[in-house]
Formats: sequence, structure tokens, C-alpha cells
Amino acid sequence: MKEFTQFVAGEQEHITKALQSAVEKMPQSVREIADYALLSGGKRLRPVLTLLWYGLLKTPQALTHKTLTVYDASVVLEMFHVASLLHDDVLDNADLRRGKPSAHLKFGIRPCLLAGDALLAMGNRQMAEFNNTALMTVISDALLKTAAGEVEEIALAGKIPADSREYLSVIEGKTAWIIRSACEVGAIMAGADENGRRLARDFGLNLGMAFQIVDDALDFSAEEIIGKPAGGDLRERKCTPPVHMYAQSLPAEEKDTFVQKFAVLPDPVFEIQKQHAENGFSDEELKAITEQIIAAGYPQKTRELAGEYLAKAEACLRSFDSPCAAVLREAVAYVQNRNK
Amino acid sequence: MKEFTQFVAGEQEHITKALQSAVEKMPQSVREIADYALLSGGKRLRPVLTLLWYGLLKTPQALTHKTLTVYDASVVLEMFHVASLLHDDVLDNADLRRGKPSAHLKFGIRPCLLAGDALLAMGNRQMAEFNNTALMTVISDALLKTAAGEVEEIALAGKIPADSREYLSVIEGKTAWIIRSACEVGAIMAGADENGRRLARDFGLNLGMAFQIVDDALDFSAEEIIGKPAGGDLRERKCTPPVHMYAQSLPAEEKDTFVQKFAVLPDPVFEIQKQHAENGFSDEELKAITEQIIAAGYPQKTRELAGEYLAKAEACLRSFDSPCAAVLREAVAYVQNRNK
Repeated sequence: MKEFTQFVAGEQEHITKALQSAVEKMPQSVREIADYALLSGGKRLRPVLTLLWYGLLKTPQALTHKTLTVYDASVVLEMFHVASLLHDDVLDNADLRRGKPSAHLKFGIRPCLLAGDALLAMGNRQMAEFNNTALMTVISDALLKTAAGEVEEIALAGKIPADSREYLSVIEGKTAWIIRSACEVGAIMAGADENGRRLARDFGLNLGMAFQIVDDALDFSAEEIIGKPAGGDLRERKCTPPVHMYAQSLPAEEKDTFVQKFAVLPDPVFEIQKQHAENGFSDEELKAITEQIIAAGYPQKTRELAGEYLAKAEACLRSFDSPCAAVLREAVAYVQNRNK
Repeated sequence: MKEFTQFVAGEQEHITKALQSAVEKMPQSVREIADYALLSGGKRLRPVLTLLWYGLLKTPQALTHKTLTVYDASVVLEMFHVASLLHDDVLDNADLRRGKPSAHLKFGIRPCLLAGDALLAMGNRQMAEFNNTALMTVISDALLKTAAGEVEEIALAGKIPADSREYLSVIEGKTAWIIRSACEVGAIMAGADENGRRLARDFGLNLGMAFQIVDDALDFSAEEIIGKPAGGDLRERKCTPPVHMYAQSLPAEEKDTFVQKFAVLPDPVFEIQKQHAENGFSDEELKAITEQIIAAGYPQKTRELAGEYLAKAEACLRSFDSPCAAVLREAVAYVQNRNK
């Protein structure tokens, strides 16, 4: 994965500069929060994917602007992503984000929520400068799909569906779509035709699906590796593939008990469905189930499921043979093998 | 004001249909919340202003679209407005909105926050369809300015500034800009030239300033009239004109005490600045000050301040002599005289 890592490292400075320049254009009262939230690091996967698809598909019809560059387009979905992290942290009352105190602990809940709204607006405003309807439609759809996927996820909490359809729909919305959009933004900026845009979309959607599935496998890794206790999704009653595999493995009667207890949601994450916690899992039970899931190898099996999506992503690169294609192939391998 | 009221009544059905049609295009998981929040009534002032400026300035170069109409453009800023109400109600933990239980009590906090984000996205998506950069820039700026104004307002809570500059900057952001934008959207849809757009902007900004100033005067009206206890802004330590006039009227020593107590913010509205409530105003003191503000006629004096902005708004209509201009003049009178 040397080339991917090198590409990411080489582009960081340009991406950071584009983010800084967007923040500087924001009204003074929200600038400090935006700066804190946006410039706290992170892998910048979305901008990197935009840049790679731009490089892969660039034509003489590539979009231009008198002052903005493809870097300024590439950071828009990162701004949306960070806006949604700001909103998430407020609601989760999370203490840490990327190793730093969450913004709302520093600036207050309401200013952070509003700064999230302002980041969404700034992203839109910046993209509008390129004067291209396809770009605006792609980024608006990304935002719409992400929010809808997160709402779907909430509705699904505590449920063990018969198959993986609901789970796949949730992760397509909450994670994969914005990655698909990042790739398509690169294709549009490159002046690609519909075929190029379709390849970018398909690549991004499949890579994004795999990215989230691997994330859900990693959730059952040792605390030393992921920096938080294993089994967080189980505690939040998210039926990710490892949890689903575990439920399916149980004998009928045990499964019924599991399903019933799983349906009791922990407070205060889900304020509307207050139930009697004593009917749900104890901390010891959750720990034991987590250990059984790991011992049964379900996280590894989950990675295999991700492999199917990665194969589809890779297939989108079949007809390309350029340095950008090589780096994108390594991005696929990076998602497959990532350990944190 | 008969013509204005008639115009508003006559357009309600078309505006509601356009809102419904936008909601129907949203992903299923957020549709119910969006429907509840958007279709709860309200004056629809923003769409009405878009329609009136469109009617006033319409040229043969008016923007067209194969399926969408000016009604579909007119509801975009209303969608932004309702999104910000959703976010406000979550943070205020407000029980009621337009006489109905707040959406978050019905659907939960997190789904409502996300549905707010989805509404912002849907508004953007719909406006992008018109394929016009000026429209996208205007609506993104509206969102950016609104959020920034609200953050400024939080920073100003508990402070009694020397003059009205900070207050005017806050209300320009949090209220006036989106009304300015509603008028400018009408002008752009009409295919107006820069001069027409400037008149629409100036009219909207001044009307919006007056609208908020009258709102701040109305905050010191009897509970029977405004449906909530008088002096809410004082309790939230917002230095609106009536509060500022009161502070300026106090003898030096009393004023110092007032300023000190005003600086003690009530919990839990302002979570980051927790202070000892015993150093602040008691409920009895707040009630007494509210009564003094009313007795001194400061709400009425505040309305006079609004009058200056309304005169500027009216001046923008000087060269027009059409039915739409007549209705817009009545809109000015409506803001001046409104009692709730």
C-alpha cells in the first residue's frame, strides 16, 4: 500500500490549505468552531478519492474556475462529513473526537450545532461557484442520503432482521453514499462522460459499503487496537453482521431470549423508547456475548463479506492503467486490510 | 391590509402543494418528520415574498424548468427556515411549535436533528434543479448568515453593549438575511437585472430588520396576546431594544447592579457558562423589570425604531405601480402593525 499512503501524505498539505481557505470565508462567529472541527486531522478519505478520480478521468473539458481548483471542490464533502460529526458528537455527548476534546465541550452545544449548519452552507456555497448543476445535485443527494440512512439506523436499533437487507440499506445511506459522491465529484470535475461518472459512482459505493462493513468487524477488536472497548455496536443494539451471525447461530429458544433482550434499548441514547433496563442485557452478558462473537470468528467472516464489495470496486478500475488507477487499487487493499 | 391578507390566503394552497411535493421526494425515513414540521401551518412569509418580487419584476428572461415552477423555488427558504426551527426546538427542548407538540417529542431528538439536515439538503437539491449559480449562492449565503447570526446572539447573551450595533448585526444575520434572500430569489427567478435584484435585497433586508424589531417589542406584550409570558428575551438575557432602553434609563449605580445581574445566565440554556444563579435576577425581579419596561413605553418606542427600516423598505418600491407593488406596500404596513 506504499503508493496509496504516499499519495495521501503528498496531498495532505493541499487539502488542508483548501479547508483553511474555506474556513476563512466563513462569518467570524462560526470560524473558530469550524476551524477546530475541520482541522483536527482525519484521513481525508473523501477529498483523496475526489482527487484520484479527477486524475484518472481528466479530459480537456475538465471544469475550471477563475480562483478555485479541484482541491476546493474536493473538500466540500469533507466539510459535510465534519458537519455531521459535529452534530453526532452533540447528540452522543461524546467526550473525544480524534483524540481532542469534542468541540461542544469547548464551545457549547448550541454553537456547535449551528456551526455544523454553517459548514453545510459553506460547502454548498463553495460548490455553487463551479456553476455546475450536476455537482450541486450530487452533493445535495449525499447529504440527503446520509441523514436518511442515520434515521433508518435509529429505527432499526434493537431489531434483529431476518436478513441483511435493512443493514445494507442503512450503511449505503449513512456511509457509502457520501464516498460514492466524493468519487463522482472527481469525475464531474474531470469533465468525464456518463460512463466515467458511472464507474466512479459504482467504485465509490462499493468501496464505501466495504469500508463500513470492515468498520463493523473492527468494532469487535481489542481495546488496544481500536482505542475503545470492543462491542460498542452491540451495546447500542446495532445489528451489524457480527451480531447478526451470532444471533443466527443460537438455538431457537436462546435466540428468542436474545432477540427480546436486544430489543431493550439503553438510555439515554434513545430517548423516545424508554424501557425497563432490567429486562435487557446486563453489562456482564454484553461482555460475554462480545467474547463469544470474537471467539466464533464472526469479525473475520464479516471481512469476507466486505471482500465481495471490494471485488466489485476493483472491477470498476479494470479498463484503467495509469498511476491514479494503481493508487485506487491500493485504496481497495487499504480498506480490506485496515486494522483501525 | 386587505389585499396582502387576500394575496397570502390565495397563495397558501399553491405553496402547500409545493411543500408537499418536495417532502414526497425525500427518503422515506425522514419524510414523516419533514411532513409534520413543514406542514404545521405558519404564515409562509418567505414564499409569499418570493412570489411577490417575482410578480413585480417578471421579464421575458424569467427562469423556467421543465417540471418545477416559481412555487417550487419559493418554498426552498421556507424549508431552511423550518429546518432551523427543528434544530432550535431540539436545543430549547421546546414543548410546543405552532400549537402542536414539538416534533422531537413525537419523533425523538436525534431523528429530528437529522431530519433538519435532510430538509436543508432537499432545499438545496430542489434549487439546484433551476441550474442557476446566483440562486445557489443566495440560498447558501442565507443559511450561512442565519447560523452565524444565531451564534453571535449566543455570544452576546448577558451583555449590555454601549450601543445597538451588536444587536443590529445579530438580527441582520438571524432573521433579516433569509427574508432578503427570499426577495432576491424572486428577483432572480423573474430574470431581473442587477438593479432589480438590489431593490429586492434592500427591501427584504429592511423588512426583515423591522420584522425582528417588532418581534422584540411584542415580546413585552401581555400573555393573552402573544401566547407566552411577557419578557422572555429578558429571561434569556437578550439585550433587545426594550431591555437596552431600560438599562440606559437607570441611574449609574442601579445600572451597574443591573449589568452585573444580567451577566448571570440562566441554566441550562447556556451550558458552557455555568454560574451561580443566586447572583443573578430572581423571578420576582424579572417580573418587576418586565412591568417597568412596559410601563415606560419602551415596546412602543421600539416599534418606532422599526419604522425607520420600514420607510427604507417602502422606498425600494417607489418606482413601481402594479398590483404586486400594492401588496408589497401592504406587507410593510402588516409588519408595522402586527400584534402577534
